[in-house]
Amino acid sequence: MIRPATRDDTHTICELIRALAEYERLSDQVVLDEARLREHLFGPRSFAEVLLAVEAGHIVGFALFFHNYSTFLGRPGIYLEDLFVRPEHRGKGHGKALLQAIARLAIERGCGRLEWAVLDWNEPSIAFYRSLGAQPMDEWTTFRMTDDAIERLAGETT
Amino acid sequence: MIRPATRDDTHTICELIRALAEYERLSDQVVLDEARLREHLFGPRSFAEVLLAVEAGHIVGFALFFHNYSTFLGRPGIYLEDLFVRPEHRGKGHGKALLQAIARLAIERGCGRLEWAVLDWNEPSIAFYRSLGAQPMDEWTTFRMTDDAIERLAGETT
Repeated sequence: MIRPATRDDTHTICELIRALAEYERLSDQVVLDEARLREHLFGPRSFAEVLLAVEAGHIVGFALFFHNYSTFLGRPGIYLEDLFVRPEHRGKGHGKALLQAIARLAIERGCGRLEWAVLDWNEPSIAFYRSLGAQPMDEWTTFRMTDDAIERLAGETT
Repeated sequence: MIRPATRDDTHTICELIRALAEYERLSDQVVLDEARLREHLFGPRSFAEVLLAVEAGHIVGFALFFHNYSTFLGRPGIYLEDLFVRPEHRGKGHGKALLQAIARLAIERGCGRLEWAVLDWNEPSIAFYRSLGAQPMDEWTTFRMTDDAIERLAGETT
């Protein structure tokens, strides 16, 4: 069963984000604050939406996404920031059900693309994504500026 | 000079998007519609923001961006979908001025990251981005589902 998350799910969403970071071996990057996440998801300016996978009344997985925009298509898309199912609940179709719910939202909302990023060593996920018809954007590399570089650039005189 | 775009700039933004696609050798992917773009940028539900670089009263470049969200940081970020300066106006700092304006917005808005994608063969841009302190996210690959795959997944019975 898939349902949209509400304010009251924020604590569980935080736990799932931490579990995802552990799986991705990126726990050292997590500086998440629960009250701030609640505000960012369910406050007046919502930055992302969350769907939850529920099994026998327990939340076992989540998908967190927001809209991006393709200027070439001239249409919005959906960017899937996080997709995670607790390891002990895998192989039962929860991940696919979450992605399917998002695919249906994409169609309802006139979105031309559904995109996400995967770590190159994550072979099981890559095989799963390929089986759904997703294509790797191998010719593109994402660049990122973080706090220090952003502040340096912002502070330079022009 | 950098200024935010308004409704009246939509035609010029379309021209710049087409010029960018030509530069990226991706013109075959462009199915942009001007009226729809105007609605998506300046209608009640805005999917992206645009800054323009102006030289002697002429628009010579643009940056189109929207907010993404990092669950690990628990903060919004800025994703730069397009950054383009007309070839005949390069080398005068317009690209850097556009990026700098976005870096300042990122700070004002509490954003922890500024991200964008670059084609792997685009060495001049990559060198420019590295010079600003941006890092390539080499260990990640973006996956994309487009219309057909989205519809197939959405239509499957569960």
